[in-house]
Amino acid sequence: MELSKLGEFGLIHKIKQLSSRKTPGMVLGIGDDAAVLTIPSHALLLATTDMLIEGVHFDLAMTDFYSLGWKSAAANLSDIAAMGGRPRFCLTSIGIPPHIAVEQITEFYRGFDALLSKHKTMLAGGDTCSSLHDLNISVTLLGEVEQKRVVTRGNAKVGDRLFVTGTLGDSAAGLEILNNRTRTLRMKRKRSGHGSETSNVPSMFASLIEKHLRPIPRVDWGRGISHAGCATAMIDVSDGLSSDLSHICEQSSVGALIHAGKIPFSPSLLGAKNFLKRPPLDYALSGGEDYELLFTVQPAKIKKLRALKIPATEIGEITRARKLYIVNGMSNKKQLKPTGYNHFV
Amino acid sequence: MELSKLGEFGLIHKIKQLSSRKTPGMVLGIGDDAAVLTIPSHALLLATTDMLIEGVHFDLAMTDFYSLGWKSAAANLSDIAAMGGRPRFCLTSIGIPPHIAVEQITEFYRGFDALLSKHKTMLAGGDTCSSLHDLNISVTLLGEVEQKRVVTRGNAKVGDRLFVTGTLGDSAAGLEILNNRTRTLRMKRKRSGHGSETSNVPSMFASLIEKHLRPIPRVDWGRGISHAGCATAMIDVSDGLSSDLSHICEQSSVGALIHAGKIPFSPSLLGAKNFLKRPPLDYALSGGEDYELLFTVQPAKIKKLRALKIPATEIGEITRARKLYIVNGMSNKKQLKPTGYNHFV
Repeated sequence: MELSKLGEFGLIHKIKQLSSRKTPGMVLGIGDDAAVLTIPSHALLLATTDMLIEGVHFDLAMTDFYSLGWKSAAANLSDIAAMGGRPRFCLTSIGIPPHIAVEQITEFYRGFDALLSKHKTMLAGGDTCSSLHDLNISVTLLGEVEQKRVVTRGNAKVGDRLFVTGTLGDSAAGLEILNNRTRTLRMKRKRSGHGSETSNVPSMFASLIEKHLRPIPRVDWGRGISHAGCATAMIDVSDGLSSDLSHICEQSSVGALIHAGKIPFSPSLLGAKNFLKRPPLDYALSGGEDYELLFTVQPAKIKKLRALKIPATEIGEITRARKLYIVNGMSNKKQLKPTGYNHFV
Repeated sequence: MELSKLGEFGLIHKIKQLSSRKTPGMVLGIGDDAAVLTIPSHALLLATTDMLIEGVHFDLAMTDFYSLGWKSAAANLSDIAAMGGRPRFCLTSIGIPPHIAVEQITEFYRGFDALLSKHKTMLAGGDTCSSLHDLNISVTLLGEVEQKRVVTRGNAKVGDRLFVTGTLGDSAAGLEILNNRTRTLRMKRKRSGHGSETSNVPSMFASLIEKHLRPIPRVDWGRGISHAGCATAMIDVSDGLSSDLSHICEQSSVGALIHAGKIPFSPSLLGAKNFLKRPPLDYALSGGEDYELLFTVQPAKIKKLRALKIPATEIGEITRARKLYIVNGMSNKKQLKPTGYNHFV
């Protein structure tokens, strides 16, 4: 259906229906000048926001709308996770160009709400408007965290050990596979006048693509780590390990050394390695969008971390010299430059 | 300067410098995964968001960047005002296309922060990214309001009187004048190869243009009205009187009757009337972007409202029949349809 048939207020009504769970703390949701919310009096308020623009952050030839909604929620949930916080409420704005149909927007909000609901987080407001060229998404997530539990980027100390949850590089590898598939499909279409959407994707590829399209924000792990008081600093890996580690080091006025051989890779990434342009390490260091948690732990607290049974791998340590180094093998120590995504460059 | 010379993190640093006031309640601002904020334990949290897209909400041929920043802040401050709230913190995302220079973005944030600072509101975070075609702005404003003082759209009662602050229609008239000027300038440029930016603008036109480009959100008036407990329902006039009144009536399950002759117009709008395409009433009913406050008051509370010395005009009343009517002159009663801006239609 064309959006012009539904109109702005029809669309808002549809979105409201899609996310109509009752949520404690939400005094007033969608439909007034502002949402009216409560945050427990003992908690601090967390607020984060992300903008996603068609052609820059995503390509509609490579994602379905459900996944796009899911990922938009994931990126913000991950930021709250990285503070050790609990996500609570969400405001989502969407600028819709003429080529988008009502069903696609509905799918976006279905995917968005599917992930929010897993984390008992509620859509509390937003904005819907038209746009001339690109689909535009802006998500603001509000969360809460106990005063003693907040984990920033700025408190890593020399001697702390560096940990990362899950595995790294999958998302960037998945993006490369998607890029190749889309290019091949376009070439086929050009040659034959039409192209088949179905192609045989090896299962390891499918798993990498899934990690790119529908990442899992580590909200429960972030809560566990902050509750146990294990981490001195934490960040989510959204720009690539090298860039995100550099943020921790800058904010904490320290340096770091990581061991390339300790960086955790998934069986899928290792299995797909011969089909990819670059070695797994490159995707981990500069790929981004893994949404894993990178955090620092005092040596005395490592036992406590292990007791949480969170899949976290020790990959290095915090050093006095304010530079980043990577050790590959026994003696090959190189300075590591932040090589994650940088807008405008 | 081109943004590519500064890079994403250089730009973030610049923005941070532009708004570096100390603010009570801001534990952690720009530079971590999320802002860490406090809201007084006796207060409710207010959250509102607006998206502004080039070519839809604004035309860079008609606004300077300082005004664009100012207006982006105003639209959101106005929403907090309409809840009777106090604005506190702001998150601002900006998607920047290649044709925009660093100086223009800096001007945007200067104008933005100039208005925020008037209301002791602090930029606490955001996102900066590139965009392919259009300049994209998304603003989320967080505020607070005492539990007893929150004013929604949903509590207007039959017999309540309808008030509006300031004057209506100026902004839409200002936009029309700007449109005409821009068109004339473009035609001149086409004919002569260049056009002069300076044109003699009568002062009444300048005042209307100013109201369009740099509207004043009625934050203090909204606080005064909510503190005195005068209003049963309130909304800001952002879509035009007819549309915004219809929102109050829908949410409150009532109707309304307004007297055309009572709608307040500025001397500038009345003075410019012979140069405009439509009568002042049209701009008030369907123009929008006036950012005045429209609210309902129990007859017994009108004295209390008057004591506040807020320039508010009684323009009608709330009725049982769930329709909107407008009376023009002695006997001319017509049904009023919401004719404000509707995206996608």
